[in-house]
Amino acid sequence: MGVSLPRKELFDVPEGMIYLDGNSLGVLPKGAAERAQRTITEEWGGQLIKAWNTAGWMALPQVVGDTLAGFLGAPAGSVATGDTLSIKVYQALAAALKMRPDRRVILSDNGNFPSDLYMAEGLIKTLDQGYELRTPAPEDVADAITEEVAVVMLTQVDYRTGRMHDMAAITEKAHAVGAVMVWDLAHSAGALPVELTASNAEFAVGCTYKYLNGGPGAPAFIYVRPDIVDDIEPALSGWLGHDAPFAMELNYRPATATERMRVGTPPILQLAVLQEALRAWEGVDMADLRAASQRLSNLFIAEVEARCPMLTLASPRDAEVRGSQVSFSFEQGYPAMQAVIDSGVIGDFRAPDIMRFGFTPLYLDEADIIEAAKRIENVMTNELWREPKYQVKSRVT
Amino acid sequence: MGVSLPRKELFDVPEGMIYLDGNSLGVLPKGAAERAQRTITEEWGGQLIKAWNTAGWMALPQVVGDTLAGFLGAPAGSVATGDTLSIKVYQALAAALKMRPDRRVILSDNGNFPSDLYMAEGLIKTLDQGYELRTPAPEDVADAITEEVAVVMLTQVDYRTGRMHDMAAITEKAHAVGAVMVWDLAHSAGALPVELTASNAEFAVGCTYKYLNGGPGAPAFIYVRPDIVDDIEPALSGWLGHDAPFAMELNYRPATATERMRVGTPPILQLAVLQEALRAWEGVDMADLRAASQRLSNLFIAEVEARCPMLTLASPRDAEVRGSQVSFSFEQGYPAMQAVIDSGVIGDFRAPDIMRFGFTPLYLDEADIIEAAKRIENVMTNELWREPKYQVKSRVT
Repeated sequence: MGVSLPRKELFDVPEGMIYLDGNSLGVLPKGAAERAQRTITEEWGGQLIKAWNTAGWMALPQVVGDTLAGFLGAPAGSVATGDTLSIKVYQALAAALKMRPDRRVILSDNGNFPSDLYMAEGLIKTLDQGYELRTPAPEDVADAITEEVAVVMLTQVDYRTGRMHDMAAITEKAHAVGAVMVWDLAHSAGALPVELTASNAEFAVGCTYKYLNGGPGAPAFIYVRPDIVDDIEPALSGWLGHDAPFAMELNYRPATATERMRVGTPPILQLAVLQEALRAWEGVDMADLRAASQRLSNLFIAEVEARCPMLTLASPRDAEVRGSQVSFSFEQGYPAMQAVIDSGVIGDFRAPDIMRFGFTPLYLDEADIIEAAKRIENVMTNELWREPKYQVKSRVT
Repeated sequence: MGVSLPRKELFDVPEGMIYLDGNSLGVLPKGAAERAQRTITEEWGGQLIKAWNTAGWMALPQVVGDTLAGFLGAPAGSVATGDTLSIKVYQALAAALKMRPDRRVILSDNGNFPSDLYMAEGLIKTLDQGYELRTPAPEDVADAITEEVAVVMLTQVDYRTGRMHDMAAITEKAHAVGAVMVWDLAHSAGALPVELTASNAEFAVGCTYKYLNGGPGAPAFIYVRPDIVDDIEPALSGWLGHDAPFAMELNYRPATATERMRVGTPPILQLAVLQEALRAWEGVDMADLRAASQRLSNLFIAEVEARCPMLTLASPRDAEVRGSQVSFSFEQGYPAMQAVIDSGVIGDFRAPDIMRFGFTPLYLDEADIIEAAKRIENVMTNELWREPKYQVKSRVT
């Protein structure tokens, strides 16, 4: 058993707000501001260039990567941090395609987060060698894994509905036909137990500003299975993925293991804040977290369905195949979500009609869920969303 | 005439330290810590996901890009920010190669910063279409620009010696043979006047943590010449380079102009601090800055040469073809630089034998230069670098 949840005392959430959007941007961990202050004033200001050594900046990406590995069921040394998730998708895909030079199909699904598909498109155009991106519906993916497929690239938890792919089963199917597996864990890391080693997947990528509370624009991560990493020639072969960055050699020699997936100078301020954010997870048992997440999500579904018959559940009802979010579809979902937000319940809208709510057991409890459902009921029953101000599409997230 | 230089009152430099490494990591601008605090506490903590709109996070990369354009002699809208310099090199190179599909040579030089060469290598291996990277000596580059060359990719100011390429002349030569020009401005932006529009170069990239004082891991930038940008199909086609990121379309449609060179979720903490750092430049005339830089550099050369006959100038003596740094070669350069640093004069060492000193007229004056030369003299004349502690190669930068 881990520490008991929630741990609200570790986070600053505005008074009166019920934040159900930790699946988009996690809340502020209490130590983050002080850590940024220290990094800026004492380290940057006081130690300047020496801080790369004296303040441990140079090692920070690896140290944070090792901590992240613990969330992913992966060994230390197998996870590199930095860049954005989209960049990490590109790295994984480019490396995976090289492993299957005789195949020309990247298989994803049309429920994948668009940026993953866009990055695949960009890589395909750049290579200009007849690659094809296939995007069947999520439920048809397993059947679409054929011997033509070089790479299966999927996001485990659907960003709209929370529907989960079966990581172990799909990876096994991919391997059975000789395809390489790339998992996007954007909505998995910090949301549910992940067992990368056990899955046997070759690559995984993800971000840290959602459930892990790393802050806006926090660095991404990439995992490479240890038995294949030494054969990877990184497409994005930057100096910090070099075996000896400061030897200033003219030719690239990849660094040991997954460190070769690093690219440029690491974003130290963001990494420092992320490292601080990860402290809130110390002692948390991911099985406990998953149980709490399912309890909160199930309660939310029950409460909202009882109170708001006009909302249609868009997420799987079975918590076993649902991530840590619950979505409802509603034709006027955009203004409805604006009105819900105005009531102090923060969720978000995803086109075309999805009202999305995330559950983060680190800082939510049952009372929050019931209060959220009551406020949503008030918005929906009284059709508060019909107010003209909620119809204007000004927001961009 | 701009504001008078230096503006030491805008920066926090440790008492007694003479910082001649602003060409590697700029010093701390006084407003940076407070800005980070506000971004973290008020914006992230207080507004959470809404801050993407209410705190202007969504627009921040473009706003900062427009400010940077002013440093580059480039119009607003032509500069995108984010990622690292290495990533931006890859984007520029990949786009440039597509513009010359019948050519197979990337021309750089062996004085270029290694990461630029490594990124070219990675792209070449990824494409696997017979591309070749040529790296003659810097002085031989102009003659190596032939009709075989698809792209000329050079760093304007040599990271070791400060030697400058003639941007206008080389770009003209590249264009004369039908090659595309990519400039790396890592040691130019904020160091000297840059006239990108006037140069007619197609692409430029750079970083902001050196002369621009954006902090460790501050975001990079990329410029694309406005008349060609609409034809660029980005290799790294992430969602924030999409014309409508939140429409969640399944296919990539590039955003307007250089915004298409954005990739993933922007590093908001780093961008906010960078934006704050750029305030220190308000009112600075870049011609004044260049004049001050040359005055400081010339003084440093005169003082060090008079005091330290064992050091050999490795930079051009002519200030017109030298960036804002001065390097000396010395066989025991590594321990010597450690001893110099211990004396409170911060420079850095670059393999194999370069002792490098940067000049940043925003926060340095003549008295600093003379004091630095005196301390270096003490180290060199008394051979303080022979102390065993300086021989250990522990530092990584």
